[in-house]
This record gives sequence, C-alpha cells and structure tokens, in this order.
Amino acid sequence: MNSDTVNIKKLIIKQSLELDCGKTIKNFPLAYETYGTLNKKKNNAILTFHALTGDQFVAGINPITKKKGWWTFAVGPGKAIDTNKYFVICANVLGGCMGSFGPTEINPETNKIFGTTFPVITIKDIVKSQKFLIDHLDIKKLLAVVGGSMGGMQALQFTSSYPDAAYSTIPIACSASHSAQNIALNELGRQAIMADPNWKKENATPNKGLAVARMAAHITYLSKQGLQEKFGRKLQDKGSLKFSFDADFQIESYLRYQGSTFVDRFDANSYLYITRAMDYFDLEKQFNGNLSLAFKKTKSKFCVISFSSDWLYPTSENKEIVIALNACGANVGFVEINSDKGHDSFLLDVPEFLKTLSEFINSTYNDIK
Amino acid sequence: MNSDTVNIKKLIIKQSLELDCGKTIKNFPLAYETYGTLNKKKNNAILTFHALTGDQFVAGINPITKKKGWWTFAVGPGKAIDTNKYFVICANVLGGCMGSFGPTEINPETNKIFGTTFPVITIKDIVKSQKFLIDHLDIKKLLAVVGGSMGGMQALQFTSSYPDAAYSTIPIACSASHSAQNIALNELGRQAIMADPNWKKENATPNKGLAVARMAAHITYLSKQGLQEKFGRKLQDKGSLKFSFDADFQIESYLRYQGSTFVDRFDANSYLYITRAMDYFDLEKQFNGNLSLAFKKTKSKFCVISFSSDWLYPTSENKEIVIALNACGANVGFVEINSDKGHDSFLLDVPEFLKTLSEFINSTYNDIK
Repeated sequence: MNSDTVNIKKLIIKQSLELDCGKTIKNFPLAYETYGTLNKKKNNAILTFHALTGDQFVAGINPITKKKGWWTFAVGPGKAIDTNKYFVICANVLGGCMGSFGPTEINPETNKIFGTTFPVITIKDIVKSQKFLIDHLDIKKLLAVVGGSMGGMQALQFTSSYPDAAYSTIPIACSASHSAQNIALNELGRQAIMADPNWKKENATPNKGLAVARMAAHITYLSKQGLQEKFGRKLQDKGSLKFSFDADFQIESYLRYQGSTFVDRFDANSYLYITRAMDYFDLEKQFNGNLSLAFKKTKSKFCVISFSSDWLYPTSENKEIVIALNACGANVGFVEINSDKGHDSFLLDVPEFLKTLSEFINSTYNDIK
Repeated sequence: MNSDTVNIKKLIIKQSLELDCGKTIKNFPLAYETYGTLNKKKNNAILTFHALTGDQFVAGINPITKKKGWWTFAVGPGKAIDTNKYFVICANVLGGCMGSFGPTEINPETNKIFGTTFPVITIKDIVKSQKFLIDHLDIKKLLAVVGGSMGGMQALQFTSSYPDAAYSTIPIACSASHSAQNIALNELGRQAIMADPNWKKENATPNKGLAVARMAAHITYLSKQGLQEKFGRKLQDKGSLKFSFDADFQIESYLRYQGSTFVDRFDANSYLYITRAMDYFDLEKQFNGNLSLAFKKTKSKFCVISFSSDWLYPTSENKEIVIALNACGANVGFVEINSDKGHDSFLLDVPEFLKTLSEFINSTYNDIK
C-alpha cells in the first residue's frame, strides 16, 4: 500500500445494537459507499449487500486495492443497476475489515486490536447495523435490497426483519441456511487459518493459512466445467512436466496467485467471523422451522435468481426460498440463469443475468414512482 | 502405537526400474499382502490397487491402525471378491508410507529419510513396480486387476502397459486423467501441507497442514446429499449455538476428527507424492491424444463402474473411458450405480455395486477356468 490518503466513509452508529450472542455494541463505525443520487422522493435507493470477501466498493475503483469494484459489471452509469437513475448504497459488513466494526478495530479497553475477542456476529446483526445506516440517510423505503451469496442471505434477512423497508428483494445465488457441505467448506477454511501458528500471535498474520482458505473457497466459486474449459490440463511450461512440487499446471499457478493476493486485502479473523455468520444463518430456524413465516408480513416483491452451474448454492436450494415465498402468497419471480461460470456468475458479465436484474428493478421502479 | 511386533511383508525388488522422471531405482522394498490361496493353475489371482490414502491391508484387521482393511466390504471369504475362491494381492504404492519405497524410507547415502528428496513418481512407475511383484509370484496372467479412484487409474495403466497380463480390468470411480478441478483440489491439499512450518523440518511433522489437506479431501469423497442426510445442520450441543469457533455443528466435529486421526497413519510427504502421481496421470497423453490407442493391444475384458453421486470422478468422466474402449473394439461393460454416498461409495456397503463386482469377476473366472 502506498501513502496516498484514502477516504473511507464511515457512519458512527451511536445507538445500541443488541447482538444475537447477547452482547450489546454501540458507538461503532459502519463504513459505506454510495453511487448515484438520492432523488427528492427518496424512493430510488437500492441497498446492495456484499458477499464474504467483498466490501462497500461496489463500482468504480476500490481506493484500497486499486482494482475495480466487485460489482462493476452490474452497477454504474447505464449498467443493469443504473446509477444515473438509482442511488446505490453498500456498507462493509459488521465483522469485516474495510472500515466497519470488526476484529481489526482497536479495542479501546486494551488499546489492542480485538482479534478473536471480537463478538461472534450473525447475518441478523449485520442487517440490523445497516438498517441504522438507512435510517440515518432518512430513507423510509428502499426501492430494492439485493445481493449474491452472503449478500443474498442479507437481503432475505433484511426483508424478513423489516417487512416494510423495501419495495423489492433480490436474493441471488444463495440459500435460507447453509447445507452441511457448505458448513464443511467454511470449516475447512477456518481450520486452515487456525492451523497457522501465526494465528492469534501479536505482530504476525496467518497469511499462509488464509491463503489456503482462499484457495479452497475459490475452487467452490467456479464450476467443474468452467475450470476445465479455462485451464484443463494446460501446463505452465509448455515443454514438459517438472517432476517437482512447483506449479506444473496453470490451474496450480492460478490458485496460488488467488491465495497470495487475497492476504494483502483481507484479515484472517474477519474471514473466521464472516464465515461463522454464514454458517449460523438459518432463517427457517428463526421462524420455528417454517420458512414461509419469515416472509408473512412483507409485501416486498421478490426476484430469486440462481445459476445452473452453481454447486455451492445450487438451484434446488434457491428454489426452496421460492417455495416458501409461494406458500405464504408472496409476490415472487424465479429465474435460473444458464451459465458455466459457477457461483461466481453473479459477479461476472453474464448478460442474461444482468438483463433480468435490470428489468426487474426498472419495472419495480415504474410501479412505485 | 504399542510395542507389538508388526510383520509387514516386503519384496525387495532387485531389478532396475527406470522412473518416468528419468531416475532409476533398484533394490527397493515393495510391501504387499495377499488373501486366499493361489490355485495350481495360478489363474485365480486378482491384483487390487489401493487409492490415495489406502494401503496393502485390503481385508481383515490392519496391523498398524488396528482398524478393518479398506475394502472389507468387498474382499474376504464369501464377499464380492471371495477369498475362498480367489487369491487377492495388494501392494502399497511406490511413494506410500506403509512399507513400500517412499519418502519415509531411509536414504542410505545420507542415513536420513528421503523426505522431499524422494523422486517424483507416476502411476506408470507404481504399476511397473507391481508387475515385478506379479512376476515374482510367478503369475503369468491375472484373473483381474481392479481398483477404485487412484486404484482405477492403476488398473487402466496396468492393462495398457501389460496388455496380456490380466483377463479382466475393473476401473471404478476414476478417470483417464485428472480434470482441472481435481488437480485444483489436490493442489489445495499440497498447499495446506507446504504452508505448515513443520514441513521439511527435521524431527517435526506438518500434522496441522496434513489434517487440513485431509479435511479438504474428505469433503470431496462425500456427496452433498449424503452429507445433508447424515449431518444437515445438527448441533453438537443440542441446546444452542456457542457463539465461538469451537465445533458447533456435528459436521465440524466430524471433519476435525477425520483430520486429526489421519495424521497418525499417514505421512505428509507421501501425500504430496501420491497426489502428484494422480495429477500427472494422463493416459490419453501417453498415446498422443488418443485414449483408444492405450487399449488397442489388449484382449482384457473391461467393466467400468461409476457412482451417480460421485462429483470427484463423475459418471461422465468414467464414460470417457468406455467411449475410448468401444472405439478400439474392446470388450467393455459399463454400470453406473445409484448411490448417494459420493465417491466413497466404492469403499462402502453398496449392494448393487458389490453384486456387479462379484458377478463380473465370477463370470470372467467361469470363462477361463
């Protein structure tokens, strides 16, 4: 990182937030970014939720990583979520490491970073903190809440917790609770971090463990077919195999690169806390085993989107949300997008997906304005 | 481990074996086990090949781990591969850690274990070493060569390398070369091991890294559906979530247990070498891009078996072997077994699978005896 001044916009939330774990926090920062302009009626605001390793920098250039925002394909002037029309808000999740209250923040009581003394947070806690931001911005009702993967979980939780706070809800490539396989995959990442002897050490970071966690996760974001088409068995050195443990195959180099660059931008403890929040998320359990009850009070219009090659949150799991919504008579549309790009499809240039997103948001806006 | 004397049967192979990497080895041990009795005609021998973390102890009680052999469901008196009728042979693979020449062996030149100075070996090398064993046992033609996963790769390689050495060939839940996803998953395991600071250290073992590698692999051996049915979101402590990073879900405890027990019986460098051999295996490339040519010279009768819920070696990849065999006019049968047990199905009590195995072997034996 260079010495440029970087402005991270933060709201200090003064109110008390009672976390699911029982602790109460207040006077904590929530870092956020906005794109576009809030109109006079304040009815063109879209709250986007980021996924596990995302942040508030949806579009443009991320001032920290100097790379494009994570939803550049979807959000911007003239894009599917058109910032010439809409006011897009995104906050770094509680537990994150891009300015919001998380394990990298200094604990005023010890003058050291919280690290693993940070409280375990949930998707519900995350959503509560963001409702404070929406209230602060004086937005009575959002045009839409939208997100993919963990962002989709937040969208579901938001509309369930605040039934009148969004005209529409767009959960993408997600589920109402993690399958055993998804818990297992997250636990694998946590174990990789916790196996690193630098974990919990002062003045040290478990970068090797975090890199392994990222590699594991990255494999799950792509489809078998997509990996095969992109990498197959292509060698780094076209000549021949090296008969060593250096990267022989291009897929090996690619994975190593994904791991090594990730540690520059992400905190290992944030990774633990956020994956924990995902695994704990269980909207059905919140409503005593009846997912339909989660949406009983809302008039929000839903558009559930899944991707055909997503094996992390397969269409069948997205459909369970649709079934629950139908069971309570909600207004719900469902689209499975054909894509060989796996779970990552929601972050990529998948025209059919972007068209679906755009049309749904525009039609909702036309209905209410 | 206690102080009981353990007999590991070993053949010292005196002949030279030129490895694919260019090095030549000789006077090296190959640990093996046999079950049943070789008949007078010496035509009832079945060579079984073990998978990545298997060993020569197919049936009975493994004298090292004190647990049942890895193929107890399939091999034994009255079992699918009936040791009352057949003589079953299994050797620990080259590069392994159960007595065969591998990285845990002492290098006589340095009086230290080979560790990562051990040469990189291939499936072809493994198969070559086992052909010496078959010759030593004076078996001119095996009734069958059979194995699942990496064992299936060895079966394919064996019959390709020695077209007249087996009446039948049974590759189970495998492929003729690793997909990009499978290379990625193996690389993940290797990276977990290599990230452990104890790796390559004298008098230390990278147990934490190896445990993470095992957890990663273990997830891939089971199906999403199987995991969901067995574990779902069941908690360890029925009361409630712990709001910590202890194991909350049963699947987490299960994975941790899989990791921690594995390190007692397996060497981390063997894990590196054997996964490398799997990734390097490419029978199509050996025959200039035409897999059919691999089997052109053999009259062996093939039975290719896949499992419906195996996402590591899906039916489509097993079928590619069948297509190649058909293209060269080989005698080939193919069965996809319905099972929700994932890749591990070949190790488990899956009646339809065991019946298929038994009937194919018995009919082959009836044809030749």
